[in-house]
Amino acid sequence: MAKVFNYDEVPAVSTKAGKVKGYEFDGVHIFKGIPYAQAGRFQMPREVEPWEGVKETASYGFVCPLLTQDTPTGELLVPHRYWPQDENCQNLNVWTTALDKTAKKPVMVWLHGGGYAAGSSIEQAAYDGSNMAVQGDVVVVSVNHRLNILGFLDLSPYGEKYRNSGNAGLADLVAALRWIHDNIEEFGGDPENVTLFGQSGGGMKVTGLMQIPEADGLFHKAIVMSGVSDGKLMPIIPGDGTKIVPALLKELGIPEGEVEKLETVPYYELAKAYNTVSPALAAQGIYIGGMPMVNDYYLGEPLITGFRDHAETIPLMVGSVFGEFSFMPTPYNKEKLTEEESRAILAGAYGEHADKVKELFLKAYPDKKPVDVLALDRIFRQPSKALAQLHAKGGKAPAYLYLFSLDFPYQNGKVAWHCSDIPFIFHNTDKVEICNIPGVSDELEEKIFGAAMQFARHGNPNPEGSDEWQPVTPEQEPTMVYDRVCEVRSDYDDELLAYLEEILPPFDLMALLSQDVQH
Amino acid sequence: MAKVFNYDEVPAVSTKAGKVKGYEFDGVHIFKGIPYAQAGRFQMPREVEPWEGVKETASYGFVCPLLTQDTPTGELLVPHRYWPQDENCQNLNVWTTALDKTAKKPVMVWLHGGGYAAGSSIEQAAYDGSNMAVQGDVVVVSVNHRLNILGFLDLSPYGEKYRNSGNAGLADLVAALRWIHDNIEEFGGDPENVTLFGQSGGGMKVTGLMQIPEADGLFHKAIVMSGVSDGKLMPIIPGDGTKIVPALLKELGIPEGEVEKLETVPYYELAKAYNTVSPALAAQGIYIGGMPMVNDYYLGEPLITGFRDHAETIPLMVGSVFGEFSFMPTPYNKEKLTEEESRAILAGAYGEHADKVKELFLKAYPDKKPVDVLALDRIFRQPSKALAQLHAKGGKAPAYLYLFSLDFPYQNGKVAWHCSDIPFIFHNTDKVEICNIPGVSDELEEKIFGAAMQFARHGNPNPEGSDEWQPVTPEQEPTMVYDRVCEVRSDYDDELLAYLEEILPPFDLMALLSQDVQH
Repeated sequence: MAKVFNYDEVPAVSTKAGKVKGYEFDGVHIFKGIPYAQAGRFQMPREVEPWEGVKETASYGFVCPLLTQDTPTGELLVPHRYWPQDENCQNLNVWTTALDKTAKKPVMVWLHGGGYAAGSSIEQAAYDGSNMAVQGDVVVVSVNHRLNILGFLDLSPYGEKYRNSGNAGLADLVAALRWIHDNIEEFGGDPENVTLFGQSGGGMKVTGLMQIPEADGLFHKAIVMSGVSDGKLMPIIPGDGTKIVPALLKELGIPEGEVEKLETVPYYELAKAYNTVSPALAAQGIYIGGMPMVNDYYLGEPLITGFRDHAETIPLMVGSVFGEFSFMPTPYNKEKLTEEESRAILAGAYGEHADKVKELFLKAYPDKKPVDVLALDRIFRQPSKALAQLHAKGGKAPAYLYLFSLDFPYQNGKVAWHCSDIPFIFHNTDKVEICNIPGVSDELEEKIFGAAMQFARHGNPNPEGSDEWQPVTPEQEPTMVYDRVCEVRSDYDDELLAYLEEILPPFDLMALLSQDVQH
Repeated sequence: MAKVFNYDEVPAVSTKAGKVKGYEFDGVHIFKGIPYAQAGRFQMPREVEPWEGVKETASYGFVCPLLTQDTPTGELLVPHRYWPQDENCQNLNVWTTALDKTAKKPVMVWLHGGGYAAGSSIEQAAYDGSNMAVQGDVVVVSVNHRLNILGFLDLSPYGEKYRNSGNAGLADLVAALRWIHDNIEEFGGDPENVTLFGQSGGGMKVTGLMQIPEADGLFHKAIVMSGVSDGKLMPIIPGDGTKIVPALLKELGIPEGEVEKLETVPYYELAKAYNTVSPALAAQGIYIGGMPMVNDYYLGEPLITGFRDHAETIPLMVGSVFGEFSFMPTPYNKEKLTEEESRAILAGAYGEHADKVKELFLKAYPDKKPVDVLALDRIFRQPSKALAQLHAKGGKAPAYLYLFSLDFPYQNGKVAWHCSDIPFIFHNTDKVEICNIPGVSDELEEKIFGAAMQFARHGNPNPEGSDEWQPVTPEQEPTMVYDRVCEVRSDYDDELLAYLEEILPPFDLMALLSQDVQH
């Protein structure tokens, strides 16, 4: 049955820089690729030049160029959308059900993942904002910005104009938030109620923006999904371009002293040179860019430098998923394992500790199979707890903790992997084939999505009249565990996590990613 | 409501090279990125190396690298999907409702457009095969293959191994058809009933394959959509690499006599050199590749060299759309023009001939507005008629002619543009927002799609029991006009087209494309 498409009768919307015209489909006004800033390479973003007339904003804008190309192999797990790339990528997308400045709907701003180096505002099929706008009665915004060496390369030793080039990618996001603050009312949004949500690198960007004074007042709530860094996985190296920049210049045959030529080298050649010279420096622990740098603009990861006072006033929701980077297929069907087979597998992994691991695991996750412990995340759960604790210590605003723990109908019950929760929070399980689990997905989606919408409205994820999900306090750590049965459980996995850290070698993300057959 | 996703219980399918495993969604078995051939750069494709075990084929494969990057601006008209690019792109996708070798369903093979230089098997949202597989009870295959200089660059003067490099991209398609012939039975398809369909460049590939003796017997019916070349738009230049190849070598700093180094230059650098040197040669009318070349493998465009005997035995459906490349927005609302305004616009375009143009136009298209004539295609309608005529002269198999003439709810009734018919033949209007026209799209889609399915089954597009749509004969040229009202009309626009050619300067595609604000 045909849905309604409307273009001709959709009004243009006024923004500070000029009028934009999107379209309406199935009750949602959609704007794609609205420019929110512009910048020369390595420069701070500035406001876009005003334009005359009406700009059609009905096609997604360029996404940031990447250093390497993906080889798509795990599309069932995370279906992707790719798009033409250009460093002039400061554009955003808006979904809303009302072009009415009195509507004042909560605004949800999606910050995509891919570390600080990859991804885009539309990288995953699950990033579409239409369902959220309708089902949640909110305005949804998703943002493209500069990544990798375009967004995060310290050139500050080479001139004042490069003062903050090491954080240009975050500065783009601040510019996007300022655009939202200045313009979103015309799209039916409330500039005084803006919630950031982001996953993986997008989660890190959320906490990153909490640590940037310039962004204060531009957003009011924060959701951090599988994206807390505690400096253990990837070492935090102070921003210092004095090694990587000369190496780049040499590789490109540019004389020292002509750093500004890096501004005009074709991106392909810049990236190729960077990919050639950076691994050797990185192996020596030398700064190579690609991450924000601590300076007077960006004050550093909360778990390392502490939360700023203002950041503590922002209600926080933080969590992770059961399996995260456990993309390796299992060579067995866990549903059909005998107790002996299961025991043998655990013994192979944990040796003499196998029985204790099993006991602690089933205490923490009574509905899982013992072998599921092999897929248990060791990357994001602990730092997510730590972040919630740190925020709770401030005592100024609540911090809610969750874990997404669903098994999917793939490889005989694969447990939730990195990104598998995104379709649920976006109310987009209908757009991701593997999320279609009859009798399960729809109900779970309502819970996860509903909590996010409540949190955006009220800073509290509970449905009206409920207080089941309590915030973390220094004394207690309630976690909303999302699964076939959802329940809030307190301090349920500390013993298990501590024991695993005790008996296992330190987690090696790089080794795991190099084995990765799915991604 | 959740649809059913199934992976674990889907059987692997045996192909000549090894087993492949796809997945099932909403009743369709889907396989993405099955490799059908492999080839060194500029070499003929050969069979893929057999593999052990089961290959997961659930992610789309690489698409062919392009010479330039798109700037997406007309996404409402033609929504795109982009994908990672690699020259090892010989892979195909299959949609079927039965993994049963006795099912013997008609096979529909989609050849994408983008000239011979661009596009991919998934370039447009409308290229998804699920709906066609279900609604048409057919097996759908779409194919990636080498394009531009990777698929069409004559190096034959430089060695026997490059003998057919000028047609490598067509040879990939022949290899894909051979793969289908050898393997499609396992996917429920009938290798003895294979219909090619393609649009724009894809239509040219369909006729191209009709002119390749090696492809005889590998397909049995042909649908050519907006893709007939008569040599007028783009001159046919004999394949001859003796100018472009030395120019490339020089630009890349490769000594003459070391042509084989072109096989290993990174594609980006090869493309950059090509984009630098080819325009000057092209301006002199010198062969620069990028198109098939006539040799003993490929026998040339039918309208120029005539149909081969075998090609005349293949039932043909051929047609075009009303507006094709009329992407310029109109500065007025045609629904609201007064008769005077309309007359003034026509006078501006046709001067003293305006009244006659209007009269002939309304005779041909009585339901259109007079100003619609400004958007009337002058590229594909005439050659499509000529191709049908030429084929009809053979008298061995029918040739059916159509025109797609729908107005869309965009810019006050924009008439059908290039690619706007694709969602209808794929039964994918639900996937293309602008195609959602209540009370119109669904019915028209059933007609267009139904005709294609009937044609695939029986070589005749009429519903059972009807003979309304007659094939073209040397005496008569019936055209199925698809619009809000669909009807077969004979020889209805000859006078109009002849008059326009008489009074207007020769059509200049390049000038039009350079004005193009939408694409």
